[in-house]
Amino acid sequence: MNNGKQLKLGMFIRPSGHHIASWRHPQAQADAGENFKHFVGMAQTAERGLFDMLFSADSATAFTAEKSSLYRTHYVAWIDPLSLLTALAACTKNIGLVCTASTSFEEPYSVARRFASLDLISHGRGGWNVVTTGNPLVAENYGLEPHLPKPERYRKAREFTDVVRGLWDSWDADAFIRDRESGVYFDAAKMHILDHHGPYYNVRGPLNVGRSPQGHPVIVQAGASDDGKEFAAETAEVVFTAHEHLESAKAFYADLKGRMPKYGREPDDLKIMPGVLVTVAPTRQEAQEKFQRLQDLIHPEIGVGLLSRRVEVDLSRYPVDGPVPEIEDDALRNSRSGIMFEAARREKLTIRQLYQRFAASRGHLCVVGTPGDVADLMEQWFLEGCADGFNVMPPTFPGGLDDFVDLVIPELQRRGLFRDRYEGATLRENLGLKLPRSRYEKQ
Amino acid sequence: MNNGKQLKLGMFIRPSGHHIASWRHPQAQADAGENFKHFVGMAQTAERGLFDMLFSADSATAFTAEKSSLYRTHYVAWIDPLSLLTALAACTKNIGLVCTASTSFEEPYSVARRFASLDLISHGRGGWNVVTTGNPLVAENYGLEPHLPKPERYRKAREFTDVVRGLWDSWDADAFIRDRESGVYFDAAKMHILDHHGPYYNVRGPLNVGRSPQGHPVIVQAGASDDGKEFAAETAEVVFTAHEHLESAKAFYADLKGRMPKYGREPDDLKIMPGVLVTVAPTRQEAQEKFQRLQDLIHPEIGVGLLSRRVEVDLSRYPVDGPVPEIEDDALRNSRSGIMFEAARREKLTIRQLYQRFAASRGHLCVVGTPGDVADLMEQWFLEGCADGFNVMPPTFPGGLDDFVDLVIPELQRRGLFRDRYEGATLRENLGLKLPRSRYEKQ
Repeated sequence: MNNGKQLKLGMFIRPSGHHIASWRHPQAQADAGENFKHFVGMAQTAERGLFDMLFSADSATAFTAEKSSLYRTHYVAWIDPLSLLTALAACTKNIGLVCTASTSFEEPYSVARRFASLDLISHGRGGWNVVTTGNPLVAENYGLEPHLPKPERYRKAREFTDVVRGLWDSWDADAFIRDRESGVYFDAAKMHILDHHGPYYNVRGPLNVGRSPQGHPVIVQAGASDDGKEFAAETAEVVFTAHEHLESAKAFYADLKGRMPKYGREPDDLKIMPGVLVTVAPTRQEAQEKFQRLQDLIHPEIGVGLLSRRVEVDLSRYPVDGPVPEIEDDALRNSRSGIMFEAARREKLTIRQLYQRFAASRGHLCVVGTPGDVADLMEQWFLEGCADGFNVMPPTFPGGLDDFVDLVIPELQRRGLFRDRYEGATLRENLGLKLPRSRYEKQ
Repeated sequence: MNNGKQLKLGMFIRPSGHHIASWRHPQAQADAGENFKHFVGMAQTAERGLFDMLFSADSATAFTAEKSSLYRTHYVAWIDPLSLLTALAACTKNIGLVCTASTSFEEPYSVARRFASLDLISHGRGGWNVVTTGNPLVAENYGLEPHLPKPERYRKAREFTDVVRGLWDSWDADAFIRDRESGVYFDAAKMHILDHHGPYYNVRGPLNVGRSPQGHPVIVQAGASDDGKEFAAETAEVVFTAHEHLESAKAFYADLKGRMPKYGREPDDLKIMPGVLVTVAPTRQEAQEKFQRLQDLIHPEIGVGLLSRRVEVDLSRYPVDGPVPEIEDDALRNSRSGIMFEAARREKLTIRQLYQRFAASRGHLCVVGTPGDVADLMEQWFLEGCADGFNVMPPTFPGGLDDFVDLVIPELQRRGLFRDRYEGATLRENLGLKLPRSRYEKQ
C-alpha cells in the first residue's frame, strides 16, 4: 500500500498540447503560443485540479533545421516560458511554477536573480529545471561554437548550479532588519560574498535579491545519461523522466535513488516523476476515438519526417500506407531504431501506423482510456516503485487538461492517491521537500 | 501654447522611493524590495493616474563597493525589475512597462525574446531601456574584465540593438496562418532568418517568439554623453535625462532633436523626458516640512560618504555641522565638484546642508511645493522646449506616488496638459509613436 503517501503531479505546459498535431484539433487553442489569457486559463484549471506545479521546457531556437516540414508545426514560436511563468505567478495562489533554464547559454548571476525573483513574486512557488543544451541550433543564436562533449557540459552545469545556490545564500533570511530608528537596513554580518573562482565561472556576489521564501527555489532535472543521473542524485529535488514501460521506469527509479546515499541524501529528498500522455474520456471507445482523431491529424510530411530523422533513412520515397521497409544497413538494423522497425515489420504496420505510434508517445508512458484505466496505471507505477508522481502531458490544451482535472483527479482522490487540498503554502511544502540550509549556517 | 499636445508621464519605480532615506520615512514601505503586492499597488495607482508607463532602472550588483555605509541603504537587493514588470503586466491593463537591460552583459537573442514576450503578455505595453554598463562591480558578477572604453561600449550597443530589432522582425505580423484544415501553421515566406555576423555578435535567428503587438517594444535610452546622444538620435523613441536647470534641459533638448534629421527621423519620433523629484502637499509649508523630514533622515554616514566619494576627499574627519572645508587640491578646485564646494562655502553651508542638497536631487530637477507650483514648473519646461514629458520620481513609495496622483494629476488635467483617459491600447499609441516597419517589408 501507499502508507499514506500520495502522488505528486506536475502539469507540463505547451501552447496547444503535447500531441504533435494538437493545434489542428478542435479541443485545442491554435493561437495559444501568443495568447497569454489562454495560459492563465490553463494555470487556473491546473490549480483547481490541485497540481503541485506547472512545468515548462525551454529551448532558445525556433528549430529551423527541420525546415522541410517546419511550417506545419506549432512549436516554433511562443512566449518565453520564464516570462510566462513569472506573469502567471500573479494570476495563481498555490501552484508551483517550474521553468527550464540552460547552463550552456545563460549566466549564473542572471539565473540566480530571475529564479529568486520568481520565488519572491510567487511567495515560494518557484523551481528551476537545470538543463545542459546539446542543440547546435541554440548555439547559432548565441554565436557559440558547437557544443561541449556531454561530460564537460555536466562539469560546467555542476559548477553553474553550485554558483547559483551560493548566490541564493548571499543573504541570511533575517539579514534585513530595516530599523527605521537607527537607520540600519541590514545586518552586515548576515551578508555573504561568494567570491567564486572556478574553471568556468568567476562570480563575486552577493546576489542583489534577498533570500527567497523557499530559501532556494526547487531544483529540477531531467537528464537520463549516466552523467545526468549522477548530477541529479547529488543536487536534484525533482526528476522528470521518460519511460514507456514499467520495467525501465522501475530500474531507473531504483538506480537513481540508489545513487543518493553517497551524497548524504535520503530517497525522499528527490521525487521521480515520469511524463505521461493521457487521453481520457468516460468510456474506452470515446477515449480511443479522441486519440485516433489526433493521430489522423498528423500530416504525413511531419510523420514521415520524424521517422526518417529517427532512423536516418529517407522514407518519403515509400508509400505512406505501404509496409515499413526493410532496413539494409547492418549497423542501423541493430540500433534501437532498427529494433523498432523490425518489430513494426513483424506486426505488419504501415509507415503511417508506425509514425503515429512513434509521434504520440515520443518515449513517454502513453495511456488512452477511462478515468479508472488512467488511475489504475498511475497507481500501479506508484505502488511498484516506478514513480513518486507524474508529469502530466495533455494531448491538447485546454481540452485535454480539462478532461484530466474533471475526470482523473476525482478518481485519484477517491482512491486516496491525491490530495483534497493544498497541504502547504510553498512548492516545497506541497512536494514534501526540506528547506535547504544556507552554506553559511553555523552547524 | 501647447497646440493641443500633452505631457507624457513615466513613473520611475524603486522599492521605497527615490529619496536616499525614503525607507526610514513613515510614508514609505520599508520591505518594499521583496514585497510584490507593494509593487502591484504602485502600478495600479500609477494606472489610476493615467501614467504612460512604469519605468525601472537595473543594475546587476548589490553595490558592495560602498561597503562602509552600505548597511544603511536599501538599494542593495530587490526583485529583478524585468521579472517584476512582467508579473505586473498581468495586474494592469493600460500602463506601459519599460525595463532596463544592458548591452554589456546580456545576449541579444535572450533580450529580444524577453521583451517580445513582455509585449505579448501585456498586449503591446512593453519597452526596453537600452543601457551600456560601466560599473566594474557588475563585471565582477559576470567574470568579465573591467570595461570597454565608452565609444567601444556604444559600438557594441549599436550592434546589439540592431540584432535585437532584426530578431523582432523574424516573423511578419501575418506569418501565422494556422489553417487547421490543410495543416499549415505558418507561411514560410513570412519567416526571416537574420543570419547576423558582426564584430561583436553572430546570431542566426529566427526569434522563437512571434511578432509582438507593437511590432517592436518601445526603445528607450538615457545616455547623456556625445556617443549616447548620437545613439539616441538614431534609435531611441524615448529618452530619459537629468537636468537641474531649465537652461541645460533646453540645450539638451535642442541638441538631441537636432541630431535626428540626418537619420531621417522627425522630432516627434523621440520623446524627451527629464526626471523630476516631486514633493507635493496642499500648502508650501506642508510640502517643505515633508521634504525636510526626509532630508533629516539621511544618516550622516551616508551623506558624508556620498559627498566624499563625489569630491574624492575624506570629509568624515570634519564636523558634520561645521562649515564645508576649503579644497586644497588645485585640479579638484576647478572641477565641477570643486565649483559646487566653493558655492557652498560662499553660502556658508554646513557639510550636512551640502550633502542634503546633493543627495536629494542627484542631478535631477527637484520641486517642493503645492500642486500649482509643480504644475507651473512642468508647464514651463514643456512649453519652453525642455521636455515632451517627465519621468516622475516620488521621494517615497507609496506615499509620494499617491500624493502625485491625487494632487498633481488633476491640476495638470485642469490645465489641459494631461490626458483624461488613455488614448490607445498600446504604449506606442499612448506616446504617439509610429508602428515600426519591418526591415523585410517591401517598400
